[in-house]
Amino acid sequence: MSSSALFADLYEFAMLRAYFELGMNAQATFSLFVRELPPQRNFLIAAGLDDLLHEIEHWRFEPHHIDYLGSLKISSRPFLDWLANFRFSGDIYAMREGAPFFENEPILEVIAPIAEAQLIETLVLNQIGLQTILASKAARVVAAARGASVVDFGARRAQGMDAATKGARAFYIAGVESTSNVAAGQAYGLPVAGTMAHSFVEACASEMDAFRSFSEVFPDTTLLVDTYDTLEGVKKVVALAKARGPNFNIRAVRLDSGDLDMLSRQTRRILDDAGLTDVQIVASGGLEETKIDALTSRGAPIDVFGVGTDMAASSDAPNIDIAYKLTEYAGKGRMKLSAGKRSLPGRKQVFREFRDGVAARDVIAREGETLPGVPLLQPFMLSGRRVAEQSCDLPRIREYAKEQLAALPPHLRMLQSREARYDVAISDALASYERETRAQLID
Amino acid sequence: MSSSALFADLYEFAMLRAYFELGMNAQATFSLFVRELPPQRNFLIAAGLDDLLHEIEHWRFEPHHIDYLGSLKISSRPFLDWLANFRFSGDIYAMREGAPFFENEPILEVIAPIAEAQLIETLVLNQIGLQTILASKAARVVAAARGASVVDFGARRAQGMDAATKGARAFYIAGVESTSNVAAGQAYGLPVAGTMAHSFVEACASEMDAFRSFSEVFPDTTLLVDTYDTLEGVKKVVALAKARGPNFNIRAVRLDSGDLDMLSRQTRRILDDAGLTDVQIVASGGLEETKIDALTSRGAPIDVFGVGTDMAASSDAPNIDIAYKLTEYAGKGRMKLSAGKRSLPGRKQVFREFRDGVAARDVIAREGETLPGVPLLQPFMLSGRRVAEQSCDLPRIREYAKEQLAALPPHLRMLQSREARYDVAISDALASYERETRAQLID
Repeated sequence: MSSSALFADLYEFAMLRAYFELGMNAQATFSLFVRELPPQRNFLIAAGLDDLLHEIEHWRFEPHHIDYLGSLKISSRPFLDWLANFRFSGDIYAMREGAPFFENEPILEVIAPIAEAQLIETLVLNQIGLQTILASKAARVVAAARGASVVDFGARRAQGMDAATKGARAFYIAGVESTSNVAAGQAYGLPVAGTMAHSFVEACASEMDAFRSFSEVFPDTTLLVDTYDTLEGVKKVVALAKARGPNFNIRAVRLDSGDLDMLSRQTRRILDDAGLTDVQIVASGGLEETKIDALTSRGAPIDVFGVGTDMAASSDAPNIDIAYKLTEYAGKGRMKLSAGKRSLPGRKQVFREFRDGVAARDVIAREGETLPGVPLLQPFMLSGRRVAEQSCDLPRIREYAKEQLAALPPHLRMLQSREARYDVAISDALASYERETRAQLID
Repeated sequence: MSSSALFADLYEFAMLRAYFELGMNAQATFSLFVRELPPQRNFLIAAGLDDLLHEIEHWRFEPHHIDYLGSLKISSRPFLDWLANFRFSGDIYAMREGAPFFENEPILEVIAPIAEAQLIETLVLNQIGLQTILASKAARVVAAARGASVVDFGARRAQGMDAATKGARAFYIAGVESTSNVAAGQAYGLPVAGTMAHSFVEACASEMDAFRSFSEVFPDTTLLVDTYDTLEGVKKVVALAKARGPNFNIRAVRLDSGDLDMLSRQTRRILDDAGLTDVQIVASGGLEETKIDALTSRGAPIDVFGVGTDMAASSDAPNIDIAYKLTEYAGKGRMKLSAGKRSLPGRKQVFREFRDGVAARDVIAREGETLPGVPLLQPFMLSGRRVAEQSCDLPRIREYAKEQLAALPPHLRMLQSREARYDVAISDALASYERETRAQLID
């Protein structure tokens, strides 16, 4: 990933130089967690690990990176020579992508010589943060669709190309069917979808002409019917069906503006009255989970939701309070005491207890403890190499997410803000380790 | 930009195939504008043009792109052969980066054979949208800082690497001093800044030890003082100054948690009492424009604000309602009539009228009209080649933004939501062209 080897805050390089000069190269543990869930989220979904591991495994400083770093006053020749040979040699334990998680739970732990674990901080936060935010948002949209398909239309409204393309992956993990983003289709093998825009209709001599000619090129396409007048547009599709007879193969019509509840019902009636019961209805235009929920709960006859803007940037919760903190160095627990910023010392494990197949509570424990429940942190990288058995096959991740979401208590899966919270406990051993570490620091 | 040649919605490729099959290759005009400003914004700042033009000028489909497109059912061999030779050959007119703009004003117009103008839609929206959202946010943060420096700490919290790196550029245009993002430093020649994190302090035997050793490596660094107890941290800096005497060169202390108003005053007093009047105070931790405004308006003695999360994703307004619409094809005005989605037909110009050096109103006119005021749309690309005279030199863009912001009416520059709006008129010629176009469509 030569293009992103410099994707780090300057202070990481400054600290690396200091560690280098001071001979600080003992093993460190850094822990990645979210301090507080956004008020609009009852849980988050871990995502982004596969892309992150790929970048860490291939992190190399090319000569042009070294030259640039050499131009900054934090550098020295011996330090640059050390960087030129940089390889990540550590271990990474993480929750599987698709796992729902909660406040203060470590979702990823890095155990490596301190400089290595430090250098990757900015990338870890940015990349796991990105896909986690977007998968967590998409899970709500998919839930609101109540079984109707959701298609990602967000590429144009995502915050940059990286967000658009990795977002499409995160959305797919959370249950979205397909994406309009061709780059994401290529990068991740995602199903891609999309047919026509208003510009095509407008460029043709008439709407009827547009429908006729587009469907000659693509007989089983979706026709966009709201360029001028939605219901008139639907009637033109019916006219096309009459003209084409058995050769009519249009799969769907798309409504992109107006009162989608009313228009979808009227459209359904016009289509059904003409015998076009197989023609589906796609709705799009400013949709997000609350609007979709309103439509599906009232039974609007919409088969597919195209969702862009609001999902693309998780607009109601575009950030999470994600932190990557030193928790152990040279065998000793570490933590800060800054106001309102708790971090749990040492290596950890998270156990999820289930009752009758439903997640009942999580316990954050010290690494090495054996407690009831399923341990969520698993090794994904050892000595700088990915663990082969840990599949990052995307359909399997998506299936895992689906199972894990289905196993959450129903009240957590509702869109409304939480009344009852999910119980996350801290093991006795971890609690006393936290007290010991704190006591040593205050001494 | 071989890596982003597929950064387009699938429907762009489907329409391209249809244009290709149907022989539709007349010249089109597409216009980029924002329908409605977010409620929290009184204006937006155009940004992202230079990066966009670079990508458009180098848009090529490599064999692996063609192979991937060939695997999709929208493709045909002759169409893929046509794509393999794709070059953008059109003209692009745009507002200069750094220009404030308002609702419905075209900020960029593309005049090209319809397929070329269509293909770039997703990229134009994504890239101009990204930097415009982020520059517009940063202008508020800079205004709130009332002359104190603002440093971008957002790389870890931006939505992906593209957003983080191009965001740093957009922030700089809007008046931010420097960025912590080293990749952005290299990509755009931006000033980079950053020193130490809590992890360094925690990894050392004690905070005093951390300050001593870090400042041996970097004598004029900034020391982070809130790991355990902020004011105790500041006192250790004073102790270090006494120990070092004339060799003490620490430039600043950084406060990253707690009540920054109170702590900055107490810190200033401790430093001043020790004669360390030159040691500056950097504040960070969850800052955004309203918190910064509260601090600066009360006179908190903070010299530098480090701003991350909230600026990085423009959290209060993470999207803009940006649209790229066909306005002319084969010499005829085009528009859609969909509910609530007005678009102005034809090629256009925006004139900004000034009174006593203050922007008084804008008039959106037809291209070719000569009206009072400064014409804001200028040619940046002609026949697929960048116009050499249009400098995209970043310090000049930043200077232009500063001048243009200073020329806005003061009420628009306030953080509070608008009471008085800025006047954007439509020329008589454009208004009658809109009526004519509409009448033809309704016919």
